[in-house]
Amino acid sequence: MEMGTVVAPVEQSLHEVEALLYRQAEGFHQDLEAALHHLLRAGGKRIRPTVALLSGRLVEAEEDRLITLAAALEMLHTATLVHDDLIDGALLRRGVPTLNAQWSPAATVLTGDFLFARAAKLISQTHCVPVIEMFAETLSIIVNGEIHQMFEGGRYTDKEAYYWRIYAKTASVFELATVGAGKLGDPTPEQAQALQRYGYAVGMAFQIMDDVLDFRGETQRMGKPVGHDLRNGLITLPSLLYYLEHPQDPALQRLMAGERLKRDEVEALIRRIQDSDALPQAVDEARRFVDEAVEALRGAFPPQPEREALISLADYIVERDH
Amino acid sequence: MEMGTVVAPVEQSLHEVEALLYRQAEGFHQDLEAALHHLLRAGGKRIRPTVALLSGRLVEAEEDRLITLAAALEMLHTATLVHDDLIDGALLRRGVPTLNAQWSPAATVLTGDFLFARAAKLISQTHCVPVIEMFAETLSIIVNGEIHQMFEGGRYTDKEAYYWRIYAKTASVFELATVGAGKLGDPTPEQAQALQRYGYAVGMAFQIMDDVLDFRGETQRMGKPVGHDLRNGLITLPSLLYYLEHPQDPALQRLMAGERLKRDEVEALIRRIQDSDALPQAVDEARRFVDEAVEALRGAFPPQPEREALISLADYIVERDH
Repeated sequence: MEMGTVVAPVEQSLHEVEALLYRQAEGFHQDLEAALHHLLRAGGKRIRPTVALLSGRLVEAEEDRLITLAAALEMLHTATLVHDDLIDGALLRRGVPTLNAQWSPAATVLTGDFLFARAAKLISQTHCVPVIEMFAETLSIIVNGEIHQMFEGGRYTDKEAYYWRIYAKTASVFELATVGAGKLGDPTPEQAQALQRYGYAVGMAFQIMDDVLDFRGETQRMGKPVGHDLRNGLITLPSLLYYLEHPQDPALQRLMAGERLKRDEVEALIRRIQDSDALPQAVDEARRFVDEAVEALRGAFPPQPEREALISLADYIVERDH
Repeated sequence: MEMGTVVAPVEQSLHEVEALLYRQAEGFHQDLEAALHHLLRAGGKRIRPTVALLSGRLVEAEEDRLITLAAALEMLHTATLVHDDLIDGALLRRGVPTLNAQWSPAATVLTGDFLFARAAKLISQTHCVPVIEMFAETLSIIVNGEIHQMFEGGRYTDKEAYYWRIYAKTASVFELATVGAGKLGDPTPEQAQALQRYGYAVGMAFQIMDDVLDFRGETQRMGKPVGHDLRNGLITLPSLLYYLEHPQDPALQRLMAGERLKRDEVEALIRRIQDSDALPQAVDEARRFVDEAVEALRGAFPPQPEREALISLADYIVERDH
């Protein structure tokens, strides 16, 4: 499965999204423009815009407004990455040095703020108040999730708390993509609900797979060391599943108690998690979300290229290896 | 002149703005709610909400939507204060310890982001797309101004650059207050233009007076040491006017060249500025902006309590001593 196949029906519109994104710093300070272009060039697969465009096609939303929504989603995502990098001090992202590694924290805060402002401007240009309201609410949910993690620590011992966190961090934006696209078109109530379920479930699967890849990744490809989250004391689904099966693991117990592990202890723990059933079990959970997403779409929409592309995208998410 | 007289026509609505602001963290993390309440209690005179409410009354805007706009403006203002404090490291604001002095930078970034999100949510609840678009554009202008100051330094040697900066920082939000309120009502084109001129000019006067008060202030009342901006290498109107009359002042020349002055050198420079004509000249400039604002209103609206209150507010701005 390649992203290329998935995006075929909306390839032209994705080019327009890209052009719209690059134009967003026109007329502003040259360093803001340079930062925006740097961040956009650093890539990402534009999965959120793709989901929005394909979803909107299913309900005959106007293409120009979909393109605007899609650009707003990518801009919002980019803005959160910039502030996240500042917050957790990650110095590499997507294998490219982050702004934070090159810029002062103050410049990074302001760049993130600027990107939020441009995301807000783009979303306002959909001219659809319910979409704009949902955008603002989603931003609140994302930040609330981050604050929660910061103050409560990320040492989740139950799945419910983990699911709540990845909803706030990731699935909420996928939901905004599909529900927002729906609001720009004319879905039946069943179709609107199917889009919501698809966005939610694919977003959850996407974050679970990100968390799985964190245990599989190579620094060069992912831009982060293997087990980056665990090294920072953050429990994600693989380590949580491992913990539920090995509650007596002494290193993990100490980490759960808030203790800081030595480097070789963390690395041994990462290897134990890698060698356990936790990773395939986590992939199974992602797969269950994808199945739910696919079922929702199949139940509400007749076969058509955009529906099949969304189904392929869901499959791609659990199969991708980077 | 007291703020009490000015706000009389909209006092009840200001209470509703206040209640709406306090409710904005309901359902989110308790520390976000605590931070929001702390920031709101720290006060401020709610000048932006007052301007919006009074302006909207002049054009018969619906009161509920005006209250929502007014709350969005104060929330936006509060959000920018939080990130500003982080950026320039000020540890006191309005005489109250800032978040930054109590919280980690990461928590402060996120709290500011949350306040931006709530401002965006509130503005979306005006259900008026042109107001929402203007809000997003204003946010971009504010951030662009901050970035500009950060990268170019704040050592302005001409008034045009200074005016551009205070427009981005302050007058743009006052303009959003009056023009936004206008868009929620039904002004004639002349009235819409008068509201824009009033918002712009009063905003400019407000920031000039802030910059004057920075040279007059007492730490206890302003929450900052006297000459705070100059100590940070930022040239505002008083120091710029002093410079234009005393281009040979050696300490100011060195500061303009980017050199860092010793503490006693800065303090002597601050006293020379205080003893010069710069402060009364700067007040005169603020007064000219206020006159322009008052003239615009008088030309477009018949006498009525809200118009008189806006005129009194403009006077209050150049007369306030804190």
